[in-house]
Amino acid sequence: MLTTVSNKTSELQGKLITFMEEYIYPNEELYEKQLNAMESRWNIPPIMEELKERAKEHGLWNLFNREEGYGTTLSNYDYAHLCEIMGRSLIAPEVFNCNAPDTGNMEVLMKYGTDEQKEKWLNPLLDGSIRSCFTMTEPDVASSDATNIQSHIVREGDEYVINAKKWWSSGAMDPRCDIAIFMGKTDPHGPRHEQQSMVLVPMDTPGVEIKRHLPVFGYDHAPHGHAEIHFNDVRVPVSNLIYKEGKGFEIAQSRLGPGRIHHCMRAIGAAERAIELLCRRAAEREAFGTPLAEKGVIREIVAESRMEIDQARLLTLHAAQKMDQEGAKAARKEIAMIKVIAPRISLNVIDRAIQVFGGAGVTEDFPLAAHWANARTLRIVDGPDQVHLRDIGKLEFKKYL
Amino acid sequence: MLTTVSNKTSELQGKLITFMEEYIYPNEELYEKQLNAMESRWNIPPIMEELKERAKEHGLWNLFNREEGYGTTLSNYDYAHLCEIMGRSLIAPEVFNCNAPDTGNMEVLMKYGTDEQKEKWLNPLLDGSIRSCFTMTEPDVASSDATNIQSHIVREGDEYVINAKKWWSSGAMDPRCDIAIFMGKTDPHGPRHEQQSMVLVPMDTPGVEIKRHLPVFGYDHAPHGHAEIHFNDVRVPVSNLIYKEGKGFEIAQSRLGPGRIHHCMRAIGAAERAIELLCRRAAEREAFGTPLAEKGVIREIVAESRMEIDQARLLTLHAAQKMDQEGAKAARKEIAMIKVIAPRISLNVIDRAIQVFGGAGVTEDFPLAAHWANARTLRIVDGPDQVHLRDIGKLEFKKYL
Amino acid sequence: MLTTVSNKTSELQGKLITFMEEYIYPNEELYEKQLNAMESRWNIPPIMEELKERAKEHGLWNLFNREEGYGTTLSNYDYAHLCEIMGRSLIAPEVFNCNAPDTGNMEVLMKYGTDEQKEKWLNPLLDGSIRSCFTMTEPDVASSDATNIQSHIVREGDEYVINAKKWWSSGAMDPRCDIAIFMGKTDPHGPRHEQQSMVLVPMDTPGVEIKRHLPVFGYDHAPHGHAEIHFNDVRVPVSNLIYKEGKGFEIAQSRLGPGRIHHCMRAIGAAERAIELLCRRAAEREAFGTPLAEKGVIREIVAESRMEIDQARLLTLHAAQKMDQEGAKAARKEIAMIKVIAPRISLNVIDRAIQVFGGAGVTEDFPLAAHWANARTLRIVDGPDQVHLRDIGKLEFKKYL
Amino acid sequence: MLTTVSNKTSELQGKLITFMEEYIYPNEELYEKQLNAMESRWNIPPIMEELKERAKEHGLWNLFNREEGYGTTLSNYDYAHLCEIMGRSLIAPEVFNCNAPDTGNMEVLMKYGTDEQKEKWLNPLLDGSIRSCFTMTEPDVASSDATNIQSHIVREGDEYVINAKKWWSSGAMDPRCDIAIFMGKTDPHGPRHEQQSMVLVPMDTPGVEIKRHLPVFGYDHAPHGHAEIHFNDVRVPVSNLIYKEGKGFEIAQSRLGPGRIHHCMRAIGAAERAIELLCRRAAEREAFGTPLAEKGVIREIVAESRMEIDQARLLTLHAAQKMDQEGAKAARKEIAMIKVIAPRISLNVIDRAIQVFGGAGVTEDFPLAAHWANARTLRIVDGPDQVHLRDIGKLEFKKYL
Repeated sequence: MLTTVSNKTSELQGKLITFMEEYIYPNEELYEKQLNAMESRWNIPPIMEELKERAKEHGLWNLFNREEGYGTTLSNYDYAHLCEIMGRSLIAPEVFNCNAPDTGNMEVLMKYGTDEQKEKWLNPLLDGSIRSCFTMTEPDVASSDATNIQSHIVREGDEYVINAKKWWSSGAMDPRCDIAIFMGKTDPHGPRHEQQSMVLVPMDTPGVEIKRHLPVFGYDHAPHGHAEIHFNDVRVPVSNLIYKEGKGFEIAQSRLGPGRIHHCMRAIGAAERAIELLCRRAAEREAFGTPLAEKGVIREIVAESRMEIDQARLLTLHAAQKMDQEGAKAARKEIAMIKVIAPRISLNVIDRAIQVFGGAGVTEDFPLAAHWANARTLRIVDGPDQVHLRDIGKLEFKKYL
Repeated sequence: MLTTVSNKTSELQGKLITFMEEYIYPNEELYEKQLNAMESRWNIPPIMEELKERAKEHGLWNLFNREEGYGTTLSNYDYAHLCEIMGRSLIAPEVFNCNAPDTGNMEVLMKYGTDEQKEKWLNPLLDGSIRSCFTMTEPDVASSDATNIQSHIVREGDEYVINAKKWWSSGAMDPRCDIAIFMGKTDPHGPRHEQQSMVLVPMDTPGVEIKRHLPVFGYDHAPHGHAEIHFNDVRVPVSNLIYKEGKGFEIAQSRLGPGRIHHCMRAIGAAERAIELLCRRAAEREAFGTPLAEKGVIREIVAESRMEIDQARLLTLHAAQKMDQEGAKAARKEIAMIKVIAPRISLNVIDRAIQVFGGAGVTEDFPLAAHWANARTLRIVDGPDQVHLRDIGKLEFKKYL
Repeated sequence: MLTTVSNKTSELQGKLITFMEEYIYPNEELYEKQLNAMESRWNIPPIMEELKERAKEHGLWNLFNREEGYGTTLSNYDYAHLCEIMGRSLIAPEVFNCNAPDTGNMEVLMKYGTDEQKEKWLNPLLDGSIRSCFTMTEPDVASSDATNIQSHIVREGDEYVINAKKWWSSGAMDPRCDIAIFMGKTDPHGPRHEQQSMVLVPMDTPGVEIKRHLPVFGYDHAPHGHAEIHFNDVRVPVSNLIYKEGKGFEIAQSRLGPGRIHHCMRAIGAAERAIELLCRRAAEREAFGTPLAEKGVIREIVAESRMEIDQARLLTLHAAQKMDQEGAKAARKEIAMIKVIAPRISLNVIDRAIQVFGGAGVTEDFPLAAHWANARTLRIVDGPDQVHLRDIGKLEFKKYL
Repeated sequence: MLTTVSNKTSELQGKLITFMEEYIYPNEELYEKQLNAMESRWNIPPIMEELKERAKEHGLWNLFNREEGYGTTLSNYDYAHLCEIMGRSLIAPEVFNCNAPDTGNMEVLMKYGTDEQKEKWLNPLLDGSIRSCFTMTEPDVASSDATNIQSHIVREGDEYVINAKKWWSSGAMDPRCDIAIFMGKTDPHGPRHEQQSMVLVPMDTPGVEIKRHLPVFGYDHAPHGHAEIHFNDVRVPVSNLIYKEGKGFEIAQSRLGPGRIHHCMRAIGAAERAIELLCRRAAEREAFGTPLAEKGVIREIVAESRMEIDQARLLTLHAAQKMDQEGAKAARKEIAMIKVIAPRISLNVIDRAIQVFGGAGVTEDFPLAAHWANARTLRIVDGPDQVHLRDIGKLEFKKYL
């Protein structure tokens, strides 16, 4: 079958599905309850750390690792299947240490980090004892065009001095967030794609100021949150540079491909959860004398949802496989396509489910509204749809010009 | 012009637009700030009461009244134009005492209330000193089919005894909410549309239990909120009956027509605000070397938005006029149509604006995400789209059968 | 009501509806039969001339005229209502001498023609004894940008010499087509919008060569047809110039506004016919045990169709009224909007009807497929949708820049 | 890669692509010219027979055969890739003896035919010397519900007597069409799916009356055409029964799966041709100062097209593979999904291409309009979309009930 996976992955799939049913779904409500019971929502509900331990015990930890010497070394294609399962619950990815942006940050450190950097930050991240964030987007420019970035990183002696306003640093509100990967310009007048660098900035460095958290359609996404962070004369040793000066754009690109596969497969998982909830609800409610499940209009929205999901999944798996086999650059059209399609169809399916649930659909009684808000942001993060459509169009035209 | 209004309305439009610019938009942020600064979000920010006084001074109070002897007596068509303006800000309708569900409740009392009922509840509502809620929807049945309602109202001597679980009682969390209009069955075995009655239930009646507030896509909609309310052996005097037993469905229908016009025009107002925000943002940001406002794809989404808004407005005004001239029953197809169209296009336009704003669009920095969540619920309240589409289809077929 | 018309128009509406039912619908098949029975399809079925006489007798002739001294002088708004009715049948507009491009050509002659030109061509056109065409579009350039036009009109002594390749000259295949209005450049180096002129070219002028007819989705649109015409050293007297040199663009603009109203209202009429056919068919067929008319999915497509039609009609009437009251220039955004919307929704509605008819829907047994092909071309003629969306977007942005 | 094929198929793909470029595309126009030059359009242009010979020489003949002992025995999955290539030209499938309904008819004969039946009809069909049709759909009932079929097959002695009105018998107008597979009821009162049988009816049997051909959006689809055929007391020997009485529905089902894969992949091939034509045209035309290919709105429609095509292809290949591995019954949801999706996206892509071509797009100068009309019928043949959506919905619900 087009969607056949390796035996190892198949086994992980099975274990993951069981784990979701035994530990994740039954604890979603508890997680929320514990969070609400704490003094501030920027604390970690104890159930999370318990679940993480449980996941380690089950061998469901760091499933994402694909660099030699680190963990499972699944292909993107194989791991994609696991992402879909995790994506069914908003609390799941962290349980398996597979959540954004930590996975992307770990990948960067595995690939480009010095031994010292790995020791200090990669190991605790792999262990799940600290969390991290990634600071790139800026409030004052259209971030759809990455070359718009304005922050400067200036070398002074053995230090980099950073001044910047960043926002949408996801996970930065988390009390365990110890380290940020900062992206800014070391050479504002250099060639367009060599102006930027990445530097590691410990969150407790003087001058790192968390201005506020950014809500998403009313959700605070606590305890991780999305932060606006100001960097005021922040100084870090030059040894905190990742790889080389001017390589920021290149490193950013390298993390995008896998990251998008993960995001998209999780969005597809959310859609699968929604269609399941929709069907179960429609089967138990009736209106105008017949169960919703027997109404033609409900069957049609279920059918449209199934067609959208199955197509999006195949497209995403195809992109993952192409990336595995030919590299991220060869697969960039495919990756751009899934970046548009997966959130789009996930939103469609969840929206239809909400409609079937009526008022219950927009509340927190079911995970639909929260999943929707999450998927909605995916149409913006890593570039809005419009930018990807433009790229896809350009790449398509290249065939004929 | 198709959209010409009376001189009086035209004058009110002008005053309202000025008031919005001078008092409403500049205080949206303050309102939120005051709310956040209070101990609980279920308190009224002082700026609201100030703005209400200001609105009274400007003669912009109770604009909705259409019953003889009460206020402005604008036609639905004329008042619709004012609703659109108020709909541009989520805090505006209350400022003018024109917010749901109070307007609908006041209309019911004007039309069906006894003198005693009017004295006790209508007058303070007209004055803005108390607030009210409407309790109809139930969590345990598909409310898309109104005959599914399960709550019972049982007469015992001079009292009605009420037992029920209701939810989505909007405004019930408001500390000023003194009175609920309760809908339930007095005669569960009577003819289908004569089983239900409406009874006035003061919120401090023993047995009225506010279980919780219901969030909407993460928003609490404080300080009004949407409540789940349990009625446990709640007893009210029979004089609290509105009109007659068995007339609940009829009364409900009578409030639906105007209520839908209001909802729809406010949704269109929200869309107008969104397209304005979109254009202003697109004019000041650039990507890939040109301002967003000059990009073909941005022009297209603006054009699609303009076409959707203008068509929805004309359809809504047409429905209002038909209701004015031929009555709500004659206009029920038109009213069903706007109930589907106005929220739909409002969501489309706001969604496009969010996309242009990027990350900023989903936060509270701009009113887009909150307006979106609001409009999203309109696809559910008063019956989901599917029910209205079914009715429109049936009515259309009647022409030919 | 928003859609109220003058008494005179109301009377014409009634007469027109009756005429359609008595004479037009019952003769659609005969028309086709007569056409097929003739030696060539480029001949006029006798029933057409009979129907024209009948229309004259009923006072339903030249309803479109709006210039002083010519005919009915209905407003665009009022006439729009009549166009909708005529649009229900593809053979109807000519019966009332209200078909494109003759109406547009007559308007140009009324407004800009010399007495001699009127005598020679306007009078017989008004009488229905000759037909005309309009030659503007060219096969070798993107006609979406009118300034791309390449044909040259060169003055030599008292003559204009014309060399050009034109196509999509609708009506040019008609054996009664005697005169063409030709648009080309007299001053290729002048200011952008003053390069073009319009010249009257009798079809029997030497050098006018009809290369072929252009089919539309397999339809030949006989006996009128759309022609590709080559003009090889065609010479006409300078007295055939319409108005002045350099005024071609201005004249073209002046005819566009009313022409688009007509096209759009006819497209809406076609949609009304389709929804009626759909409903009647759905009422008499059944599948899986119930009549199609009682199925939820059929009701939904009927509802969507009704919503689209009613909105498009209101928008078109609004545009017509704005043009009547403020002029075509002030209404150009509205006119651009209907040019996009009316064909779009007409296609949607007809497509849904075809789907309900199944195989019968794509044949000539019902007028659906032919109406569809007709409406499809409207998304292209007078500029493709994309050009109008661009204009609408630009005009909308102007409010804020 | 998900779309990897066997070496043999890969080789055939290469040969087929070359053949299309060398022989098919360059002869599309000639085919049409020869057809138009003949006395009647119901004759075979000589170029077709020449191309068939050429295809045989190149080993590109009967590629579809999958029954043991007949030809290539490609899997559905592998053959699907070839179908896509053939689908790029409307004249191609016949050239390779891979056109509907002949392939389906041949499959039925291979699988269920007696030796005599094979000798008489299968062999000449495999050889391409005769053509065939399939008569199932009836004008008087909604064929979306196959149990609606009304025709009766009555056994009288050694003969079956057939009385029926059938239509949409594609290929029946072809002068080489020698044999029809007729479907009708032998046991109208039997169990629902055992009422029908299939019988072979030579086209020259007395009583077989071709009433007329059915146009499709103005196209006659000559020389094959779609016929309305009346069967008036048509008598055939009982040896013409295929398989057994009562097995008509079962046989019909068995041919549907592969047939739908073929139709869908051809529709995808048509979409690929359209996107290529679109891109090439957009690259060579300009408007408002820039090539169409550089405009954002054109890039977006190209991107949407690419996303639709790639997803539809993957879904279709997935369905084919599932059918290969688990059988048609297990794959019936997947097959229903592609039946909806492939024509839908093919229409979308072709429609966008037409829009870019403007007037040229709706003519016969480019194959777009003809491909569109072809794809439009696919939304109806083998059941309208609505029926498939209903089935998909029902199958999806089964998971949860």
